[in-house]
Amino acid sequence: MARRQMKLGVSMIGLGYHMAAWRHPDVDPAGNMKLSHYVDVTRIAQRGKLDLVFLADGVGIRAQDEPKGALARSSKNVVFEPLTLLSALAMVSEHVGLVATASTTYNEPYHVARKFASLDHISGGRAGWNVVSSFTDTEARNFGFEKAPDYDRRYDRAGEFVEVVRGLWESWEDDAFIRDKASGINYDESKLHVLNHKGEHFRVAGPLNVARTPQGHPVIFQAGASDAGRELAAATADGLYAASQELSAAQAYYSDVKGRMARYGREPEHLKIMPGVLAVPGRTRQEAQDKHEQVQSLLDPLLGLNQLSRVMGDLSAYDVDGPVPDSIDPRMRSRAQIFLDLAKRDNLTIRQLYTLVAAGNGHRTVVGTPADIADAMQEWFERGAADGYNILPPWLPGGLADVVDMVVPELQRRGLFRTEYEGTTLRENLGVPYPTHRRAALARGLAAE
Amino acid sequence: MARRQMKLGVSMIGLGYHMAAWRHPDVDPAGNMKLSHYVDVTRIAQRGKLDLVFLADGVGIRAQDEPKGALARSSKNVVFEPLTLLSALAMVSEHVGLVATASTTYNEPYHVARKFASLDHISGGRAGWNVVSSFTDTEARNFGFEKAPDYDRRYDRAGEFVEVVRGLWESWEDDAFIRDKASGINYDESKLHVLNHKGEHFRVAGPLNVARTPQGHPVIFQAGASDAGRELAAATADGLYAASQELSAAQAYYSDVKGRMARYGREPEHLKIMPGVLAVPGRTRQEAQDKHEQVQSLLDPLLGLNQLSRVMGDLSAYDVDGPVPDSIDPRMRSRAQIFLDLAKRDNLTIRQLYTLVAAGNGHRTVVGTPADIADAMQEWFERGAADGYNILPPWLPGGLADVVDMVVPELQRRGLFRTEYEGTTLRENLGVPYPTHRRAALARGLAAE
Ligand SMILES: Cc1cc2nc3c(=O)[nH]c(=O)nc-3n(C[C@H](O)[C@H](O)[C@H](O)COP(=O)(O)O)c2cc1C
Ligand SMILES: Cc1cc2nc3c(=O)[nH]c(=O)nc-3n(C[C@H](O)[C@H](O)[C@H](O)COP(=O)(O)O)c2cc1C
Repeated sequence: MARRQMKLGVSMIGLGYHMAAWRHPDVDPAGNMKLSHYVDVTRIAQRGKLDLVFLADGVGIRAQDEPKGALARSSKNVVFEPLTLLSALAMVSEHVGLVATASTTYNEPYHVARKFASLDHISGGRAGWNVVSSFTDTEARNFGFEKAPDYDRRYDRAGEFVEVVRGLWESWEDDAFIRDKASGINYDESKLHVLNHKGEHFRVAGPLNVARTPQGHPVIFQAGASDAGRELAAATADGLYAASQELSAAQAYYSDVKGRMARYGREPEHLKIMPGVLAVPGRTRQEAQDKHEQVQSLLDPLLGLNQLSRVMGDLSAYDVDGPVPDSIDPRMRSRAQIFLDLAKRDNLTIRQLYTLVAAGNGHRTVVGTPADIADAMQEWFERGAADGYNILPPWLPGGLADVVDMVVPELQRRGLFRTEYEGTTLRENLGVPYPTHRRAALARGLAAE
Repeated sequence: MARRQMKLGVSMIGLGYHMAAWRHPDVDPAGNMKLSHYVDVTRIAQRGKLDLVFLADGVGIRAQDEPKGALARSSKNVVFEPLTLLSALAMVSEHVGLVATASTTYNEPYHVARKFASLDHISGGRAGWNVVSSFTDTEARNFGFEKAPDYDRRYDRAGEFVEVVRGLWESWEDDAFIRDKASGINYDESKLHVLNHKGEHFRVAGPLNVARTPQGHPVIFQAGASDAGRELAAATADGLYAASQELSAAQAYYSDVKGRMARYGREPEHLKIMPGVLAVPGRTRQEAQDKHEQVQSLLDPLLGLNQLSRVMGDLSAYDVDGPVPDSIDPRMRSRAQIFLDLAKRDNLTIRQLYTLVAAGNGHRTVVGTPADIADAMQEWFERGAADGYNILPPWLPGGLADVVDMVVPELQRRGLFRTEYEGTTLRENLGVPYPTHRRAALARGLAAE
């Protein structure tokens, strides 16, 4: 049997993952509003044989201006809408997967099903949907609400949302379209399935007005780490984007999620768990450290505090040089817990904490030689903590080029990463199965009885 | 002064405008689900120096299966989602405008504002939004409703929707982003405008998370011909897609809409009225007639009746060989009126009516030599009925290639159409002004006082 290999994606949001990326000397600070920037990143990802480019998303600015003046110091306020961007990028790439985040909180399943199905056709089978629920109040206010819905309601809606989207993606069987010019029959009526979903959150008749897609349906990613998030991933996801700082925590998370899959009749290897890793490679350790410190030194304290507040809740009542409180009500519980654990472990002040997490926002950060970084990646991969990684370059495109030019060859030498794409679709490269058409299977099963 | 010239778009929905397009011998019947098909059409449009490609849209299949079995004879059940498609096409074209329909009925203004703003950036200033309201019950059922909302409510929502989107497009001033690496200031806080819209249908805080776009904001088209539709166009649209059969009706419509603009402080020439025209050119009249009859002969009667019902309402209780009833409740009043006028004028049965309108679905149909077609286009253009046309090729891409190769050169010879694009943006080519940033103007005005 061929050796198990890592799956790798890259987060391509804006100018890089680090809050100070836009001030980096190598970065074009207007790049977040330039198509050419994303074209460059995508081409570098494909040069590195990466599985996918990944776009996080917010339906609005995902932070309050707290402390006042912080937002004006961030480049992350404007960005392209992910699906629009990925369609364009489909035209300048051939192999790399295209995964966009779309929230289930203020959207309609019909719109989401259509758009991702279209992207899957347009890209020849390279589309993926990262399912999230929106947790900030600033986003809620763009859709008629004052606050984000509470946890349970968000996840409840998310679960039903995914079910409706999957159902819509099964409107047409793979071979529904006959297109017989002579008889004038365009499709086989027995191969059209009308959904007629009636649930708590949605009533959606269908059918979808897009044919079944090259991948059967787009790949499904999930990002959300609480119990409800894990269950959703175990039930439906092909990929899982996660955040962990420590091997032990990552292992526990990994085995917990995989352990839930049997209940849904799924094989553990059909869900790829890909934690984020902020990687800063250098030819020497010193060079890597220098690079990392350079971008850290550009971090504006207002922005650091702002990023922390977004996850943990309003910190304005606390002294930045005092201890990190654990009494506030976080909107993103899992991430807040990572921060609290870090703060407790080393007894950090608020200021020390936000400086520490500025780079990776709670994701694992690895700074070192290509061998150091490959070691770190290999360890989690071989010790039941990861099937691959979502690489978070601190700045773009340079930070990705460094990984592709230095770390990827090292992983390839170790046999841990592909040297050629295995297939033409994202599914084939990820090694997750083509989905059965459940409605068709049901219909055939019934017919056979 | 340079001679006034026509503006030309092409409707690129699926395999062509005619219901029988997919059965045409020159048409790839699977083309509606192939990107290459749309790439071909776009390139032909650009070769012809057309202003824009235009995508109609339905958020679902816009017809009931009435009479039973009709839908299975149509290719119009599946298509790509317009914005996803146009982003991809932006990458294989340089000049032609990209106009997508997005309904205001089951959408959120924030999503629509973001996507079109992104497309405008991605395409370098070639995006346009065609504002419609969804009128079919089959679409309503994909969004939790049993029936489409009534007329007044749809248009009321549409009006507020457009206001919110325009407001969101004014979140950032043209020069809001300073991006000063040294000071760490990314944008000038005085150039960010938070919308805080609170209306009857929407509460939207903003700001939009996309910077102001190359065209200031995307071009706005409108399609909807009743009183409310005209008012909406007069108030906000740069382009208007319309349907008329007769010169006199088109003139009345044209002068009515233009007459409404003064109330909004707008110049009549800043709204381009572009009726649809189904054009079938041939080297001789006979050749053109033969072409037209060929596609007409492929029309399935079930489909003809289905198309008529979609506009006029349920016709199943009536004899197809009897007179056309005028008592039913149409969901698309303006189009139903065109059909009724035609039926009355020539005393048509239901069958005769649907055969007559199968090709153009109520739009003007012109069959003849390039000179005949140019004459027809010139007449309306010079007699106050049109500023240009949305060309509806009966089948694609061949039907468009015929227009581009035969009719466009004739129009150019007459000086009625450009031989080179005037500008780089859709706005410049259409000859509609760059929009003032109203919020900025207001702020500056107040500051000056
Ligand atoms: C790794 C990761 C990435 C996420 N990315 C996004 C995102 O791009 N957009 C978004 O709105 N929410 C994102 N979320 C938020 C989740 O969807 C969810 O709302 C939040 O994490 C709270 O749920 P949890 O406690 O289950 O993680 C992300 C969460 C995680 C853990
Ligand atoms: C020329 C024209 C094109 C239209 N295109 C669309 C379309 O692509 N999608 C849609 O949902 N409605 C479309 N409509 C429907 C209108 O938005 C509106 O709902 C309908 O015409 C009823 O309003 P009216 O009586 O004002 O025309 C179109 C209408 C016209 C007149």
